Amino acid sequence: MTDLDPADGVRALELDRAHVFHSWSAQGSLTPFVIAGAQGTEVWDFDGTRYLDFSSQLVNTNIGHGHPAVVEAIQRQAAVLPTVAPAHANLTRGEAAARILALAGSDFGKVFFTNGGADANENAIRLARLTTGRDKVLSTYRSYHGNTGAAIVSTGDWRRVPNEYARGHVHFFGPFAYRSEFWSDSPEQESERALHHLERVVQAEGPASIAAILLETVPGTAGVLVPPPGYLAGVRAIADRYGILLVLDEVMAGFGRTGDWFAWKNRDLNPEGIVPDLFTFAKGVNSGYVPAGGVVISESIAHEFDERVFPGGLTYSGHPLAMASIVATIDAMRDEGIIENAARIGRDLLAPGLARLAERHPIIGDVRGLGVFWALDLVTDRESREPVSPSVVGALKAGLLERGLLPFTADNRLHVVPPCTVSDAEVERALEIYDEAFSALS
Amino acid sequence: MTDLDPADGVRALELDRAHVFHSWSAQGSLTPFVIAGAQGTEVWDFDGTRYLDFSSQLVNTNIGHGHPAVVEAIQRQAAVLPTVAPAHANLTRGEAAARILALAGSDFGKVFFTNGGADANENAIRLARLTTGRDKVLSTYRSYHGNTGAAIVSTGDWRRVPNEYARGHVHFFGPFAYRSEFWSDSPEQESERALHHLERVVQAEGPASIAAILLETVPGTAGVLVPPPGYLAGVRAIADRYGILLVLDEVMAGFGRTGDWFAWKNRDLNPEGIVPDLFTFAKGVNSGYVPAGGVVISESIAHEFDERVFPGGLTYSGHPLAMASIVATIDAMRDEGIIENAARIGRDLLAPGLARLAERHPIIGDVRGLGVFWALDLVTDRESREPVSPSVVGALKAGLLERGLLPFTADNRLHVVPPCTVSDAEVERALEIYDEAFSALS
Repeated sequence: MTDLDPADGVRALELDRAHVFHSWSAQGSLTPFVIAGAQGTEVWDFDGTRYLDFSSQLVNTNIGHGHPAVVEAIQRQAAVLPTVAPAHANLTRGEAAARILALAGSDFGKVFFTNGGADANENAIRLARLTTGRDKVLSTYRSYHGNTGAAIVSTGDWRRVPNEYARGHVHFFGPFAYRSEFWSDSPEQESERALHHLERVVQAEGPASIAAILLETVPGTAGVLVPPPGYLAGVRAIADRYGILLVLDEVMAGFGRTGDWFAWKNRDLNPEGIVPDLFTFAKGVNSGYVPAGGVVISESIAHEFDERVFPGGLTYSGHPLAMASIVATIDAMRDEGIIENAARIGRDLLAPGLARLAERHPIIGDVRGLGVFWALDLVTDRESREPVSPSVVGALKAGLLERGLLPFTADNRLHVVPPCTVSDAEVERALEIYDEAFSALS
Repeated sequence: MTDLDPADGVRALELDRAHVFHSWSAQGSLTPFVIAGAQGTEVWDFDGTRYLDFSSQLVNTNIGHGHPAVVEAIQRQAAVLPTVAPAHANLTRGEAAARILALAGSDFGKVFFTNGGADANENAIRLARLTTGRDKVLSTYRSYHGNTGAAIVSTGDWRRVPNEYARGHVHFFGPFAYRSEFWSDSPEQESERALHHLERVVQAEGPASIAAILLETVPGTAGVLVPPPGYLAGVRAIADRYGILLVLDEVMAGFGRTGDWFAWKNRDLNPEGIVPDLFTFAKGVNSGYVPAGGVVISESIAHEFDERVFPGGLTYSGHPLAMASIVATIDAMRDEGIIENAARIGRDLLAPGLARLAERHPIIGDVRGLGVFWALDLVTDRESREPVSPSVVGALKAGLLERGLLPFTADNRLHVVPPCTVSDAEVERALEIYDEAFSALS
């Protein structure tokens, strides 16, 4: 926090408003929050005001801000070789792939690196289509898979509709016990009915036309929709029954977010131990310190392309700076027990703390999550479960910022998504701020 | 080049072959070249063997390898704040956007940052479709625009065909005097006929259905196809006549490659001074030291989204590490006269040097280019202009590597694409190596 000059904050905002075109926004009336620097769970502005970052930015700084080992790895690699063409081999790329595959397990053969999560999903879809010779990809309405031409149409939420430029994408309803599409009255029934619905969609679309079912292991932006018991195993069984590949999107859920290296490896989520054919990552793999993502490819799908040309690629695939940050991130997460911290924080502090919060504030209709991956579903009324209006979420957001917490909100929800490195004291402080801000709302 | 250990080279190759899935390749029989480090125009392997990099990797290291100012900017920014969500403002992002817009000129209002060239073109297409309310995008068969779902289908070359997952993309033939599709016998006639052909495609597809014409200002991977006199101005006139937007893809051609900041600003290419509605960049903007790209948006299109939500975005849009490297790259290119160097090298050394090479080697059927952006079209016979076989290109490539030059080849062509910082002595040395390698072929 050295050398902060408030004039730089003014300048940052002026330049932004004058010159920067923003994602997912009307450009006219934005007043972006200005971030000057960050460390651990804290970010600060140019006035030196500090905020607890319980957004992890876009749920990506799993290792916290400014982790010294990752920063140093980037600095060192920048001096040696920041960039190299993907056709050439580079030691950092091999080291990164080896580490990811060691975590993924022996079912997986290779890693294809991309620049982020969207093109990771793009390439998973490409691999699935080419391997099966089939065209359709099934994904849920409550999902987000990225914003390139094919990834955005596999997305379920509103962001797809103005972008429907690709073909072969079919949407179905996933399980969501709190807002069931299946008139269910228990998580078990929700799981069973959601599986029945998926199998009916598969049959109705024609199984032989379907390349893949693409699912976020825990749909994230859609509301941290923890799959009910048996659902993931049921989807795997349906995929197997019809020769369809299962692609799990771990862009947000992977690398510690759920308290395990991968959400699909987390026994609380996947007690049956099912294995996807392909899974994608980005965000937590290097906490977004350098843009990076990728697809982890099963041994058998990788071998499909031993003699056959894979028709995909990108200039920055396996970028050395990104790879160095991945190697340092994985090593630090392992050596410092960061995954275990996320699991413990979720179990011992956030689960009981958020439950207490819900007891005190009737606006909280549902609390869902695990690890450092939680959502509070805000309602006007617990009986009707009617979502609160955007203005209520706006007021909550402002109240949290005023009290020194940078929140993550989406639709009618507050997502509680600190870094995996968050401390007990920071969680306690955040729970107090949430409590105060909710009290101030009423 | 300190601390090189040949065992690391062995390990890099082993890890790569075991774990890394490669772009655009059958995976079984690859033997990638291993790069340990690089500086300026040179790369080296773990044995300490040095090579002149006349590929600029994937035509991206315009500022050369390891430029100290850019490396230092990355190192400094990594320590301050490597990553931030795109919704928040950050000083580096504003500084980068301001610099790019100052270079683009007053017709342009804002910059939307992406992770690379493919998603830059994706977002240009999105902007064009939403602004016009029209769907179709016209691009040429000899083109490359990236490898996401929509970008790959705007691409012309073979890489599109196994990826046709998106809709609304129509392909036409661009001008290419050496291999004309229009039975022309001069560049002027090629230009005139190519424009006639484009206008006929526009009329036949229905002008009211066409959002944009998307063109690489100088198609790069397709063979450095310098547009003939009047072509760019003619395309602009056709676009205007039918209310179609003109999107120029400057991913490879921009930031110094042609000897100007942007190829469309280069008076040798665009003497009429036409202006696109949108143009895209990546690669040279920061020499790929950190993955980055973007769209430069005209004032009027930017204002279209003042009140209307732009439905596009990505986690790493305006990534601080990428932005810091852009700021440092632009400043260094300006302060060190790097653009001027590229222009001078092209005019005084490469143009005459490659012409002399063609005089000595009948395999060189055509020499095209400007700045540090050249292609030699290799033929079995100058009369028939029949392209040489892949085995000839393979032998040439091996011969160049043996002699200490890392080449860029595509189809039947050798592309001569050193960094913009290349020295006179390096160009002379490269011309000698090319000469020797061509002599050894026959």
